[in-house]
Parts: sequence; C-alpha cells; structure tokens
Amino acid sequence: MNISTRGRKIPPSPIRKLVPYAIDAKKRGVSVYHLNIGQPDIETPASFWNAVHSYPARVLAYGNSQGIPEYRQWLAKYYRANNIDVDENEILVTTGGSEAIMFAMLAVADPGDNIIVLEPFYTNYNGYAVMTDIKLNPIATQPEQGYHLPPAEVIESKVDERTKAILICSPNNPTGTVLTGQEIEIIADIAEKHDIFVIADEVYREFIYEGVHTSILHIPKLHQRGIIVDSISKRFSCCGARIGAVVTKNTDIMNSVIKMGQARLCPPTVEQYGAQAVLMQLSEDYFSKMVSEYKNRRDVTYEELMKIPDVVCKKPSGAFYIMAKLPIDDVEEFAKFLLTDFSMDGKTVMIAPGPGFYATSGLGNSEVRIAYVLESEKMRDAIRILAKGIRAFNNR
Amino acid sequence: MNISTRGRKIPPSPIRKLVPYAIDAKKRGVSVYHLNIGQPDIETPASFWNAVHSYPARVLAYGNSQGIPEYRQWLAKYYRANNIDVDENEILVTTGGSEAIMFAMLAVADPGDNIIVLEPFYTNYNGYAVMTDIKLNPIATQPEQGYHLPPAEVIESKVDERTKAILICSPNNPTGTVLTGQEIEIIADIAEKHDIFVIADEVYREFIYEGVHTSILHIPKLHQRGIIVDSISKRFSCCGARIGAVVTKNTDIMNSVIKMGQARLCPPTVEQYGAQAVLMQLSEDYFSKMVSEYKNRRDVTYEELMKIPDVVCKKPSGAFYIMAKLPIDDVEEFAKFLLTDFSMDGKTVMIAPGPGFYATSGLGNSEVRIAYVLESEKMRDAIRILAKGIRAFNNR
Repeated sequence: MNISTRGRKIPPSPIRKLVPYAIDAKKRGVSVYHLNIGQPDIETPASFWNAVHSYPARVLAYGNSQGIPEYRQWLAKYYRANNIDVDENEILVTTGGSEAIMFAMLAVADPGDNIIVLEPFYTNYNGYAVMTDIKLNPIATQPEQGYHLPPAEVIESKVDERTKAILICSPNNPTGTVLTGQEIEIIADIAEKHDIFVIADEVYREFIYEGVHTSILHIPKLHQRGIIVDSISKRFSCCGARIGAVVTKNTDIMNSVIKMGQARLCPPTVEQYGAQAVLMQLSEDYFSKMVSEYKNRRDVTYEELMKIPDVVCKKPSGAFYIMAKLPIDDVEEFAKFLLTDFSMDGKTVMIAPGPGFYATSGLGNSEVRIAYVLESEKMRDAIRILAKGIRAFNNR
Repeated sequence: MNISTRGRKIPPSPIRKLVPYAIDAKKRGVSVYHLNIGQPDIETPASFWNAVHSYPARVLAYGNSQGIPEYRQWLAKYYRANNIDVDENEILVTTGGSEAIMFAMLAVADPGDNIIVLEPFYTNYNGYAVMTDIKLNPIATQPEQGYHLPPAEVIESKVDERTKAILICSPNNPTGTVLTGQEIEIIADIAEKHDIFVIADEVYREFIYEGVHTSILHIPKLHQRGIIVDSISKRFSCCGARIGAVVTKNTDIMNSVIKMGQARLCPPTVEQYGAQAVLMQLSEDYFSKMVSEYKNRRDVTYEELMKIPDVVCKKPSGAFYIMAKLPIDDVEEFAKFLLTDFSMDGKTVMIAPGPGFYATSGLGNSEVRIAYVLESEKMRDAIRILAKGIRAFNNR
C-alpha cells in the first residue's frame, strides 16, 4: 500500500525538525534561545484581544468565502494607506499567508509548470511546490551581495516556456533583504517581456529599517500581473490567528482564488473580527514603535555577528531575519550539535540551517538564518553563545 | 496572460452561486428560508465561548503543526468513546474538514490518479480534485435505493491501475444516507483486494436517527488503509471555527500529512482551545438532545416532501440533509426561479441544485438537496412553499 509520490517528497520543516533535540536539551536543564522561528515576542494588540474576548455571536457560523465584507473594507483602507490602490473586491481573505501562497501558485501554474524563485527563500514554498506539483526554478543570490538580485540576464536565462511566474519576497524571509524600487522594476520588465505573473510575499511590509518598501502594486505595469500574498501574523504578532490575504487587480486570478476559497468554505471567523478591530483602532505610532524595537535588535545581532571571525553577512534592511555565512562546513550538523553537545553557562541557541531555504541541493551548507525575535540583550547573549558554539564545533 | 487550467476549471460552489439572487429577493422584501447550506442554527456550546472569551495568552503564537498536544489528547478520548481506538499521535488537527480532505487526497494520489467516489457527493470534493489534479471516479447511486451502495461488482468494475482510494461519506452529505456495517465491510473487502485506501468523511458521526454509525476504523482490516477526515463544524455548531482532523493509524500517511501541516504552520490556536473546552465539559445529553431536535426536523421535512406528487425520496437515517428527486426537468433553473420569480405570502426557499453534487455531467437535473437546519415549523412552512413553487414553475 503506497502513499503518493508527493506525499513522500514533501520536505519536513527544516525549522521544526530540530525540535526534539531542543526538547531534550531543556530536559537536561539547558535553556534554549529560539532564533530558529519567526515567532515575535511582541504582544498581540489589545484591540485584537478585546474583540475576541467580547465576540458577540451565539452561533459560530460560516463567513463569506472571500472574507467578511467589512473586514475586507478595512483591509482595503490599510492597503490604500500603503499606496496600494485596491478595493475590497480585489482582496480574498485567506487562512494565513500559507493559504495565500498555495492559492496564488495554483492560480498561475499547472502540474509540471515552473515558478522562478530567488534562493534562499521561505522554506514552505518548497512544501507547496511539491503539494501542487509545480517546479521551483531557483536562482541563487549571494551573501556577499546581501542577497540582492543577480543581473537581469541571469534571471531571464531561467525563463522557459513552462515558466508561469516569478515569486519574490521583500522584505525577505530568510535574508532580511529589501528589494529596491529599481529591482522591482527589473522584475516587472522581465515579467512583461515574457508575459508571466509576479507573486510577491509582502508579509514584512512594515519591517523596514533603511529606505522604503516598494510593493509590486506600486508599479503600474504590474497592476494586471501582480499578486500580493499577505498575512497579519508578523505585523500584528498574530501568528496563531491564521489570517492572510491574496490581493490582486487581475479579475481572472481573483475569480479563480475565490472559487478555491469556496472549496474551503471560509477563513476563521472570530480572528477576522479581531483583525478588523486592530485595523480600526491602530494607533499612529504602532508601527514606528515596533520597527524601532526590531531595528535595535537587528543592530545588536549584526554587531555581535560581525565580531565572529570569518562570518559573511551584509546588514539587512528589513524583516526580522539575518542570513549569515558561518565558518562551518555542515550547518545541519552544527545546529544539532548546539542542542545536543554544547552549552555555555547552561544556555544554548537553536538556529535554522541554510539548506532548508534552498531548492538547489548542495547550497546553504554554511549558511544560517537567525530570527532576531528576542529582546536586544537576549540577542546579544545568544550570538555570543553562537560564537562560542562555532569554536567548539570546529575544535571538536 | 493566462491563468492555470486548474485555476479556470475549479467549479464555483453550487450552493453559493445563487447567493446574489437571494440578496436581490431580500431587497425586494421577500423572506428566504435557507435550505441551501448546512449551517446549523443550534447555539455553539457555552464552553466554547467561555474559553474563547477568556483566552489567557498575550501573544497569539503559532501552535504545534500537528495540533495542540492537549487538544489532541482530548480528541483521542473522544474517538475512543466512539470505539475508534487511536491515540493523540494518530491525529492531525486541520483547518476545518476542508483541509483534512485536501491533505488526505494529496497523501494517497498523484496528478492523474483517481479516487472512487459515490455520486451524489459533497460538492467540494470536486474543487479539491481540480486543485490537486486528481480525477474523481464516480459511481452513481439512486434516489430509488435511498442512495445506498450499488453491488460490489459495480464498484469493482471502476477500479483501475490508477485508482488510489475510495472516498465515502457516512452519514452522507448530500443524501443523509448512513452506510450499514455490512456496506463498510464490502468497501473494506474491495480496498483490500485492490490494495487501495479508504478515506471516510465522518463529520456527521453523531447525526444518526435509526441504526448505528459504523466508522471505517471499527473494521480491523481498515486499520492500516483507513483515513478519517473529520470536523467539529456540525457536531458543535462551530462552522466558522475551522477546526477539523485527519485520523489514521497508518504511519506513512500520518508522517505525510504532518509535513503538509508543517508547510501551513498550524491550525487556528484560539479555536483549538475552544474546541478542547467543549470536549472537556461535554454534557452527557448534549448529543441526544441535538439528535432528537434534528430527528424531529427530518420527520417533518420528509412528511411534507411526501405530500408533493411525484417526489422520489427514501427517508434518510442521518446527517441533516435530504436529497430528493422532484418533478422538475431543470433544477438549476428552478432554484433560480424560486428566488427571482416566486414567493408565497412574501416568502420563498433557497435550495441546492442536484448537478453540483455530481461529477458525471447530466446527472442530478431533477434532484435537490435540502438542509433541514431550521426549526420544525419553519421546515414545514418551507417545504409547503417549495411544493407551491414546483407547481408554479411547471405551470409557468
């Protein structure tokens, strides 16, 4: 009795597969700094909790498949405040950014088609590619270039007759890189020339420490070929709410994802109500306070990383991740070692190994993703422990 | 710029596509009995609301990809109380029964493979089949036989080398039919003989008015080839919570769906907490009261339907649907007519047309699904209006 090929081939989460070792470490009394997962420690806004705690209905009914209309109106206002000119009919509320990614991929590509993606990339694109039988067509970016775009010719050389889209993520998970307006224009030109879609994961839109964010829907020539996948998880510290969105001005794509939305009935009702309350009551300084906190964490993390000999890393401008090349040959082994064979003053760190963020096998063996989701002084301590761990691993 | 073939081919929800006509009817002042959607009017248990209203965390964090461990323990207890012998590691909590269906389909079949399904069937199997590029391999059942199984030879004749599973739903949506233990045994024998899986949608497990429910995991020979897809939506009147489950004793399947679960991170956190509270505080008579209420509604609905000349329908033993064959040639047109051109004392009914529940084109044109989710006297009134609507449609 055989399960499906895709059922076998889906990669386990590279972020979560070390969890059993972390549990064992804690059982031994070792405290673990979790730099491995993008789970913010910032409190979810009180407006969200107040709404959830006072949700008035007696019957928890199905909502609209496209998302609760009033919530979509507030979302449209939010996007317009970000110079993304959409109305509520150009938004489908999804169950997390995850579902948005899957729906967007399904809407543009059939089995055997491919989607260009810059490596390293958010690891779950891999899982959805296997589930939907789409090939990821990866283009490597380099730590030495701060993981920015390679020349346009390199990207274009990857486009073939089965390429249906370019998938970008800016600010980037896992690298923290923010694509410039010029880079988005380059992608728009390639998409137009080859008549393909651009899917943009913009869940870290507000997490910008230098420069500005350019959305694909800021670029007129992407109005019809752009699909934003989005989520409230990070910006409102609401990871467990599972509320995201597909945003597109292309009516064929919207009609298609609405039908997918009908197949799964609706996204969670109470959380949409909570998310709407957050948008309705958002204080003017909410994002500036949050960004200031993360910028501080980034600066400390980067400063400490730079003290480690032979680390390669450009200071990233966004999100809350740093991808760095370490003086380590086998980072998978190293990540495990940190949990099983190392501690400093009763503490260790859990990191996300690089290879899980690549589709090309053999890449990322010296790279690591660090989520700076802890307070600055904890980050400082954690990176110092990491530094000592590197020495211990290389001297073992 | 073309969207994907599957993106185009996903059928719109046959239940929801009449919604704009219903909205128009209401604008004209016509009141609409919604018999078209399985949205119970029963109150969600107070234990659920109490838990949600007092959810204690300040950060709404990601939960475990497999589902919150404590909730899974309570779920395992619930299943064991239903003579389904599983532990918490044999359960993956999903985002609604919808995700459970999709994960189960993905785990057993690759693009181009097929899954046998008895027609008529829950319409969203169609949507997921298109999204996952799996073919539904339909076997028609008949209103005259109460939509029970055809002879085993008929089912076996449909099995080919790309058949990976038989998908059943009992108690059935849309027919209300409860498969007997003997029927489940027949399916088990076919599955064993041809070495394929059995996926069972058992979300209406408790909605049984005569006889008993046989789960596929009651049958020893299905322990390794059985996959239950489940949901709390109906039994706890929690449709908007989006909490379901995949339950299987097959470790290959479980490992596969856990990896799918990791790709989408986690199901909604607060609702799992609510669902756990319901299981912890479930009163002994919760289900018997609910079943007694629905049995009454079914009896009234059936009684009134039988008064309409030329209606074909056997009294169904479960769920909260009746599928009936009406003296109507084009039920799609009839359903629209009821909303646009008909009313009785300022009221009309909205029904779900049969064709949407079939994969075979041309079937179901005279059938209709009626969800008896309203109080008995409303159901009586609604079916009387339907009867008058049939006459008006045929005399128009």
